[in-house]
Amino acid sequence: MLLNCDLGESYGAWKMPVDSAIMPLLDQANIACGFHAGDPVVMQHAIEAAVTHKVAIGAHPSYPDREGFGRRSMAMSAAELIACIQYQVSALNGMAGLQGSQVTYVKPHGALYNDFMRDAAIRRSVFFAVAGFGRQRLPLMVQAHPDYRTLQAEAAEYGVPLIYEAFADRAYTDSGYLVSRQQAGAVLSLDAALEQVARLLRDGTIISQGGQPLSVNVDTLCVHGDTPGAVAMATQIRQLIAQQAKT
Amino acid sequence: MLLNCDLGESYGAWKMPVDSAIMPLLDQANIACGFHAGDPVVMQHAIEAAVTHKVAIGAHPSYPDREGFGRRSMAMSAAELIACIQYQVSALNGMAGLQGSQVTYVKPHGALYNDFMRDAAIRRSVFFAVAGFGRQRLPLMVQAHPDYRTLQAEAAEYGVPLIYEAFADRAYTDSGYLVSRQQAGAVLSLDAALEQVARLLRDGTIISQGGQPLSVNVDTLCVHGDTPGAVAMATQIRQLIAQQAKT
Amino acid sequence: MLLNCDLGESYGAWKMPVDSAIMPLLDQANIACGFHAGDPVVMQHAIEAAVTHKVAIGAHPSYPDREGFGRRSMAMSAAELIACIQYQVSALNGMAGLQGSQVTYVKPHGALYNDFMRDAAIRRSVFFAVAGFGRQRLPLMVQAHPDYRTLQAEAAEYGVPLIYEAFADRAYTDSGYLVSRQQAGAVLSLDAALEQVARLLRDGTIISQGGQPLSVNVDTLCVHGDTPGAVAMATQIRQLIAQQAKT
Amino acid sequence: MLLNCDLGESYGAWKMPVDSAIMPLLDQANIACGFHAGDPVVMQHAIEAAVTHKVAIGAHPSYPDREGFGRRSMAMSAAELIACIQYQVSALNGMAGLQGSQVTYVKPHGALYNDFMRDAAIRRSVFFAVAGFGRQRLPLMVQAHPDYRTLQAEAAEYGVPLIYEAFADRAYTDSGYLVSRQQAGAVLSLDAALEQVARLLRDGTIISQGGQPLSVNVDTLCVHGDTPGAVAMATQIRQLIAQQAKT
Repeated sequence: MLLNCDLGESYGAWKMPVDSAIMPLLDQANIACGFHAGDPVVMQHAIEAAVTHKVAIGAHPSYPDREGFGRRSMAMSAAELIACIQYQVSALNGMAGLQGSQVTYVKPHGALYNDFMRDAAIRRSVFFAVAGFGRQRLPLMVQAHPDYRTLQAEAAEYGVPLIYEAFADRAYTDSGYLVSRQQAGAVLSLDAALEQVARLLRDGTIISQGGQPLSVNVDTLCVHGDTPGAVAMATQIRQLIAQQAKT
Repeated sequence: MLLNCDLGESYGAWKMPVDSAIMPLLDQANIACGFHAGDPVVMQHAIEAAVTHKVAIGAHPSYPDREGFGRRSMAMSAAELIACIQYQVSALNGMAGLQGSQVTYVKPHGALYNDFMRDAAIRRSVFFAVAGFGRQRLPLMVQAHPDYRTLQAEAAEYGVPLIYEAFADRAYTDSGYLVSRQQAGAVLSLDAALEQVARLLRDGTIISQGGQPLSVNVDTLCVHGDTPGAVAMATQIRQLIAQQAKT
Repeated sequence: MLLNCDLGESYGAWKMPVDSAIMPLLDQANIACGFHAGDPVVMQHAIEAAVTHKVAIGAHPSYPDREGFGRRSMAMSAAELIACIQYQVSALNGMAGLQGSQVTYVKPHGALYNDFMRDAAIRRSVFFAVAGFGRQRLPLMVQAHPDYRTLQAEAAEYGVPLIYEAFADRAYTDSGYLVSRQQAGAVLSLDAALEQVARLLRDGTIISQGGQPLSVNVDTLCVHGDTPGAVAMATQIRQLIAQQAKT
Repeated sequence: MLLNCDLGESYGAWKMPVDSAIMPLLDQANIACGFHAGDPVVMQHAIEAAVTHKVAIGAHPSYPDREGFGRRSMAMSAAELIACIQYQVSALNGMAGLQGSQVTYVKPHGALYNDFMRDAAIRRSVFFAVAGFGRQRLPLMVQAHPDYRTLQAEAAEYGVPLIYEAFADRAYTDSGYLVSRQQAGAVLSLDAALEQVARLLRDGTIISQGGQPLSVNVDTLCVHGDTPGAVAMATQIRQLIAQQAKT
């Protein structure tokens, strides 16, 4: 079980208050590519921190919507969305190359992530975009879901490997999606999050908001870097993972 | 002597009216990277056309100023300018890679091009940015100038090869710079342009607006794609080059 | 019956090729406010031309999406959409004031226009945004539709007067909406457009693509300024209107 | 002596950490207009807070450079700069009107503020832009400077009233400009700032970094809202002003 986090989300003079102490705790850093957050200097620094701590670099592309932080769905054509993703991955990959590194996976951001999970046309565009980077055979990080077989079959058509992630501190609906941040209880307390992680590590299930056990295959856990106590949470999740690895 | 042209300068619904018939006449296409012009779809199409016609792809990075088309100097810090250039080159290079090609040189655009020629601090940032792509050892396309030794010495410090270009249809000042587009006579007629090219091919000089012969080393000629008669001019320049090659 | 047209849609170095000869033919100019097209200089010039020809100035606000020319739906919150529209109307109105004029109506642009016609939540936001300009009591220009009573009732709740427009050269579906530009036959030929206008002036109906007569109340006809023959079409429509006014 | 502060400088998901407790302490709020900071929702909220606390609303226009927070000079043409300023003032003024208020002065932001102080061509554009709002006769807030007569004469030509401001917590050069933030000692400690304010209130002078007394006419003091202790500083400056008013 790995740990991933969204990073590089400052922009110009505006800082996204991520505690830099979280980087050493991660396995995978999802770095913004300048379309919802990040600018060339911010990206450079995020890559540098990832390289220093030997954290894998993932491209975190978004709809082109800085003002909405990539959280607003946009009705892009397939051609626009494909080129938009490929531009972002290319920019980050090239800049990682300047520091002797490279992009090793892609994780859609925000509204694009959610639209991907629910809309087959969006998925085709995203798979097509990522499959284009053939030589590198980039995996795509997606939400672990009870009904993962559909995703897997589609991804296989494009030859795109999948990385399944679960969210440590987010509540799940009975159908296995994230409870919207607009709703109460969407974000778990530290204790509830640790319990969710412990159960997931123990028996591969998440208990939904409605009390249903969701059986999910999970490769990596997403933690947040911009909430108070983020580093403490990540530290304790790391310990849970280490304990489980021993048994 | 080669022929180069700025391309990929449309943006969204706005078309820069470049006659597509110019691409087959070129050796080098300077493709906008999205900061002054171009968007991911436009870049993809420009790359495709270059690949089809076996034209070398150059990155044409700019100050981040779409509304000003990169023609307004901006007081960026060295760190900002370096990262800004590296982001743009990376994006175009990655997208070229998706079509089995790559960026083989860099040419600064607009105000950045002019500032580069006149300001040593800007030059250091540009050289540093390009030198970062060490494995590819990207050459930089700059203006051929009587006093090219300074440029050459500086570029050598960074290990950046230079490609010298002259402008077919632009008038030159006595000190070897371009006459500003704000001034009368800045852009030459077809006949005057062909005469300028013929002399350059014959004896390596350009006659300045003040009548001074400027002795310049030129590797490539820049033609414009967005003026009426651009294709006719490029065709005739191609013929002049072919004639000279025979002799 | 009045004539309106979308104007001020250039951006920076990119020109939207509208024949300036169309302005004197119009009653109402829908001027872009900088979010999908237009920039401060372009807006200033468009206002100047409208003032010169005594054409009423309408604000033409859009989703904030220059790259998509406002043609892509965006999932904005109500608060975001309201403020976004009010900002645009304010900017244009203030700049019109500098030339002794003012905004006298609002017409949503592109995807916002279409979403308005189909989505009651969007309509509430747009009505609310426009109603805010209470002192000026700005009317809203919307698509004339057989089922206009719903719109009218909603608008009345917010105290917003409506101006109904029909499109001279666009085909209509049987349910009274525009045939999508993606489909064949969406844009009418000059002759078909003139026939559509003549019938509308004569008996208040439009014949849909499926042959259904659509009974619509129309206050103004939208013509396009960026198509070949636009001025000729506008001139002939003006004549049809003048003839009908005499009878 | 009044107190002013730059506000409304958040953008989308990014918050500029200004303590909202500062608003009640102010006389004048310089509100960003969306070009270097602020978006329509942020502007709306800033106006609302100003109206609630009966603080005068000033437009704080900038070069169009969000990524650089308006801190990078841009070589705009006079026509571009004028229209750019008028657009921003119009947008804020219209949005203030929706809340029953209005813009009552203009203060250039960042690099535009500094360029204004040093470059007569920039000053002409700014004066011209502001003078356009003739009916409102908007004053312009500028830096109080020993050599204020030049500014005053120029402003008079355009009929633009001036408001002179000094900075509570910034060090001054011997020639009466601000010490650049890049240099040590540019920002004063709380104690040094209070001493600077006290002297200014007492005898109308500021002691420059080099120990020179600068005699300046000051109408308003600028405090910062985004530094730790900002509210404490503003509170104490308010008290100094109140004490002086009594004597």
